[in-house]
Amino acid sequence: MGKTIDLNSDMGEAFGAYRLGQDRELMNYVTSANIACGFHAGDPRVMEETVALAREKGVGVGAHPGFPDLVGFGRREMRLSEAELRSDLIYQMAALDGFCRTVGMKLQHVKLHGALYNMAVSDENLAQAVVRAVRDYDRDLILVASPGSAMIKAGEKLGLPVANEVFADRAYNPDGTLVSRRVPGAVLHDPAEVAGRALEMVREGWVKAVDGSRLPLKADTICVHGDTPGAADLARQIRRLLEGNGVRVRRLRP
Amino acid sequence: MGKTIDLNSDMGEAFGAYRLGQDRELMNYVTSANIACGFHAGDPRVMEETVALAREKGVGVGAHPGFPDLVGFGRREMRLSEAELRSDLIYQMAALDGFCRTVGMKLQHVKLHGALYNMAVSDENLAQAVVRAVRDYDRDLILVASPGSAMIKAGEKLGLPVANEVFADRAYNPDGTLVSRRVPGAVLHDPAEVAGRALEMVREGWVKAVDGSRLPLKADTICVHGDTPGAADLARQIRRLLEGNGVRVRRLRP
Amino acid sequence: MGKTIDLNSDMGEAFGAYRLGQDRELMNYVTSANIACGFHAGDPRVMEETVALAREKGVGVGAHPGFPDLVGFGRREMRLSEAELRSDLIYQMAALDGFCRTVGMKLQHVKLHGALYNMAVSDENLAQAVVRAVRDYDRDLILVASPGSAMIKAGEKLGLPVANEVFADRAYNPDGTLVSRRVPGAVLHDPAEVAGRALEMVREGWVKAVDGSRLPLKADTICVHGDTPGAADLARQIRRLLEGNGVRVRRLRP
Amino acid sequence: MGKTIDLNSDMGEAFGAYRLGQDRELMNYVTSANIACGFHAGDPRVMEETVALAREKGVGVGAHPGFPDLVGFGRREMRLSEAELRSDLIYQMAALDGFCRTVGMKLQHVKLHGALYNMAVSDENLAQAVVRAVRDYDRDLILVASPGSAMIKAGEKLGLPVANEVFADRAYNPDGTLVSRRVPGAVLHDPAEVAGRALEMVREGWVKAVDGSRLPLKADTICVHGDTPGAADLARQIRRLLEGNGVRVRRLRP
Repeated sequence: MGKTIDLNSDMGEAFGAYRLGQDRELMNYVTSANIACGFHAGDPRVMEETVALAREKGVGVGAHPGFPDLVGFGRREMRLSEAELRSDLIYQMAALDGFCRTVGMKLQHVKLHGALYNMAVSDENLAQAVVRAVRDYDRDLILVASPGSAMIKAGEKLGLPVANEVFADRAYNPDGTLVSRRVPGAVLHDPAEVAGRALEMVREGWVKAVDGSRLPLKADTICVHGDTPGAADLARQIRRLLEGNGVRVRRLRP
Repeated sequence: MGKTIDLNSDMGEAFGAYRLGQDRELMNYVTSANIACGFHAGDPRVMEETVALAREKGVGVGAHPGFPDLVGFGRREMRLSEAELRSDLIYQMAALDGFCRTVGMKLQHVKLHGALYNMAVSDENLAQAVVRAVRDYDRDLILVASPGSAMIKAGEKLGLPVANEVFADRAYNPDGTLVSRRVPGAVLHDPAEVAGRALEMVREGWVKAVDGSRLPLKADTICVHGDTPGAADLARQIRRLLEGNGVRVRRLRP
Repeated sequence: MGKTIDLNSDMGEAFGAYRLGQDRELMNYVTSANIACGFHAGDPRVMEETVALAREKGVGVGAHPGFPDLVGFGRREMRLSEAELRSDLIYQMAALDGFCRTVGMKLQHVKLHGALYNMAVSDENLAQAVVRAVRDYDRDLILVASPGSAMIKAGEKLGLPVANEVFADRAYNPDGTLVSRRVPGAVLHDPAEVAGRALEMVREGWVKAVDGSRLPLKADTICVHGDTPGAADLARQIRRLLEGNGVRVRRLRP
Repeated sequence: MGKTIDLNSDMGEAFGAYRLGQDRELMNYVTSANIACGFHAGDPRVMEETVALAREKGVGVGAHPGFPDLVGFGRREMRLSEAELRSDLIYQMAALDGFCRTVGMKLQHVKLHGALYNMAVSDENLAQAVVRAVRDYDRDLILVASPGSAMIKAGEKLGLPVANEVFADRAYNPDGTLVSRRVPGAVLHDPAEVAGRALEMVREGWVKAVDGSRLPLKADTICVHGDTPGAADLARQIRRLLEGNGVRVRRLRP
């Protein structure tokens, strides 16, 4: 019987006069969209348009909340209190949910952005605070995070649905963490190679780590970066290879 | 048989380290709270705390959206496109609604803030754009606006519930518009006089205009300003006088 | 004896992760840069880098202040009090001036951005408020504005140096105002035609208006739009044609 | 011969409709004002008014730059790159300097705000980045910081004038660091006691630490908190006691 996988991408990262990403093209190939919520990127108009586009293409909509740091694009660590973080998350999820509601959709998932995502990978307290905020807002939302991360553990512990996210274009350490972007070879650029890794991850359940060892990796969704040149083409190739090999590509929750 | 009236006040206008208003005291006397949504005032933490306070006191929660102009407190006119305004409104209503949802409440009403309110009093296109945005988000929301305004007319035309709002502490022109704040005597400060006018408005259905004439005025809710010294005391006196005269004070939608 | 002209372009309009314009290429052809100051566009890092680039290329630096409306890119009208506008202008000019100071440059000019520019073209009170703010900050700054505008008049009246700005890629009405962008043909796209008009404006002192009449037009600087595809190429062609015909292209103040 | 000391206080921390602090009263007693620059607090209008007030009272003006985090009032740690921090600092110093310039004043000093101050107390790289940015902007500016901090050391190393700041209303550990606000007794509230400690610090050159030991402490300026009730009265008492005991209270640079 065939395997199933979701393809997700960050979208709606434009802001006012500023364009970013290739949402329109990417929406043809991915099945879930992580939409920025106005704090690190996105503005209300962009959010509404991106939700409309997702609906048109049948793509699942997820909130992509980040730190309140537009100029830093949410990529700079900030030390928020748990209460501040909670309210910031609910605000962002709900604002995006409002645009879903006006077009008859439901929010499908939540995926943290940038520095917040990275901090919550390993910080258990932060991860649990995130899970509580998401759960208190809507206990059906799926938390998308790296396999083995503090977020996945917190989600499982506190009863929130989770989806394990893998990166086909990133090199992995033997312990399952990503090789730092500062290390040469950390990011893979050859579309065929990336697509091949995606297929391997889905079909075999493991990926070859940088030391050549086989790293078992649970994969519910593959992240496709949308801010690189050729992102749409890469997404197309990944999807084609997956489907050509009998993998069913569909959103996390139909 | 007794009359019924709602008392509303703007709340949740603090921001970060900045305090404003007397929410905690006012919540004892008013029945509906117009809560700022983060654009002209309010931040996510303040919003969550204000909703929690409203729930504790049994006060109805309304969105109080404004222009994206924190430094101007939403009091400066801005020319937004209809699409921009629509998205800004949905974003703000939904964000506040999210905090209601986490405590099991439903958003009761919407009241525009500041310059946006003032512009929509007389601008029909703007008023209709507002009504469409509110209705598309949630057709059960009650639009609070001045009797006879373009907003009330647009609400009635487009099928959105409306509530007529009167100001017991403001002088009225014979045509039903408010006397400009720049005119001496435009704002009444004596609590007993203000309370008396509130009772008159509710029981008689009219108010004495600046020229001495009787101005018929439909009143579903009375606005109590929360940012003046003595606001809570004024609200207390108004409520006491109303209830002492057989008027039932309760929120727009129980 | 040869004519002299300045070529100016809006620059430094990136923000955080968002890129905009072709500053690096344009700096090779224009002689004055209007640099955004962080309100409608630009952030401190972008400002510092853009000033450094201007210095490297010998380009004159001007402040390009706008309304505090990043999401609207300063293109939406806002009603500020004169005091608010004054402080907003001084803040923006001085912030940019700081980056000039650290590399041993002096601010050369000021050109308003977007809706603020458009409002000050015809609003005398606004124009005089702008001139007073600029003059109080630095009475040597050159105000760049459309010939015949309220800004030029206010500058001349209040003793601030002015420079008349013309647009070689825009159609002119016989009264000297620009044809609205909503009218077909309002913006010229053919580089050769635009360059030809630029030369005509500089050498002849007039431009052919939409009705075919000759419109006398004082030109101290020609605006080259930087946010259109091919902007750098257009600037190159304009400069080449001007210099090929004996016009000296140099910054407003050497 | 008499001792000399400066009294400094954070000012200009209002924002738009939000008031904070007691600037007008405090300006009668302190000799240096650390004025917020629009990132964590303050807006251009507030800055211009606060500079005007300082000039009227003969108070020295310093920049009080903070993180770009208005909602967090600059009290939350943020991880900026050195280049980002540098540009943010120059932007803020220069913007405030612009208001000084329009009234014929010169910026006297710089004191970091909130989390940025706290981080730069012990982080040498951060402290040196701060000093380089200040020095590149204006090598005459005085950096105000805690005695023994990485900032004072960086200032001395890189040739920037420094002023040692002490806190008369805070308990000190024997190693010269402040007792954490979370510890009972960390903040002293009795005006007479605080004034007495101020006198002791200035006249004797030491302060009694929490363990009773005498802590030698170099004091060029005493910080008077402006955001507590009774701040102006406290400043008045400190100044009176100091002057009554022959200490000359005057700004860092006359």
